Amino acid sequence: MTENFILDSSLSQTSFKICDLTFSQVRLVNNKNFIWLLLIPRKNNLRELIDLDFQDQIELLKEINWISKILKKLKINNQNICEKINIASLGNITPQLHIHVIARHSEDICWPQAPFGQEAQPYEKEELEDLVKDLKEKIEK
Amino acid sequence: MTENFILDSSLSQTSFKICDLTFSQVRLVNNKNFIWLLLIPRKNNLRELIDLDFQDQIELLKEINWISKILKKLKINNQNICEKINIASLGNITPQLHIHVIARHSEDICWPQAPFGQEAQPYEKEELEDLVKDLKEKIEK
Repeated sequence: MTENFILDSSLSQTSFKICDLTFSQVRLVNNKNFIWLLLIPRKNNLRELIDLDFQDQIELLKEINWISKILKKLKINNQNICEKINIASLGNITPQLHIHVIARHSEDICWPQAPFGQEAQPYEKEELEDLVKDLKEKIEK
Repeated sequence: MTENFILDSSLSQTSFKICDLTFSQVRLVNNKNFIWLLLIPRKNNLRELIDLDFQDQIELLKEINWISKILKKLKINNQNICEKINIASLGNITPQLHIHVIARHSEDICWPQAPFGQEAQPYEKEELEDLVKDLKEKIEK
């Protein structure tokens, strides 16, 4: 990993760090309409998935799988919140390579449409702290 | 590969077959606003990326890379048409696992927004045939 990894400022302003995995930083997007995670490879100057060499792509894929499995099992207030996982690498606005991994369910705010470009509803401070702590425990386990 | 692979009817109605790669079928979405390809693993009963075993995911990843590299170099009427690749596995509407690989550029119809959910502009028959032929030659090479 790059020791002097620099996170894009728009990612740092719109999401909260959960933890660093071996390859990526995991962040929670500040939008309580979804459990919306980002995986950001901790290397600089990446824009496209194909900017990663194949071995690094495999490391990233393992982490996408790990995060996906956690979201599939995740319960909020004793409710399963993930009927479908949405995974995407877009980056048209924010150039730094980041992978969206989003828990979707059939009663969420824009189901079955894609969640990109919808207005975000920010977390309250306390619920955010609790959620980040809970996700960190599950992801680092 | 599954010999009796069954393509979801909504995918067959909204896209055209380009070719079969080793693992996936490659299709062109009937929307001339973008060069919008789909990779559909030719196995039945898949919905999520994590429904594939890891070795199959790696085969799919290789094909995503191959398609991405072709789109990056693709010219239409001597113009580069891919400044950014958008890759996504959504599947909220169409349950069969399919990966979107879309060439985006800063003058396309909805740049920099995500292209999902926009009204499609169908191809004319002749331009479609020419484009499918051109893409097939590049992808099968």
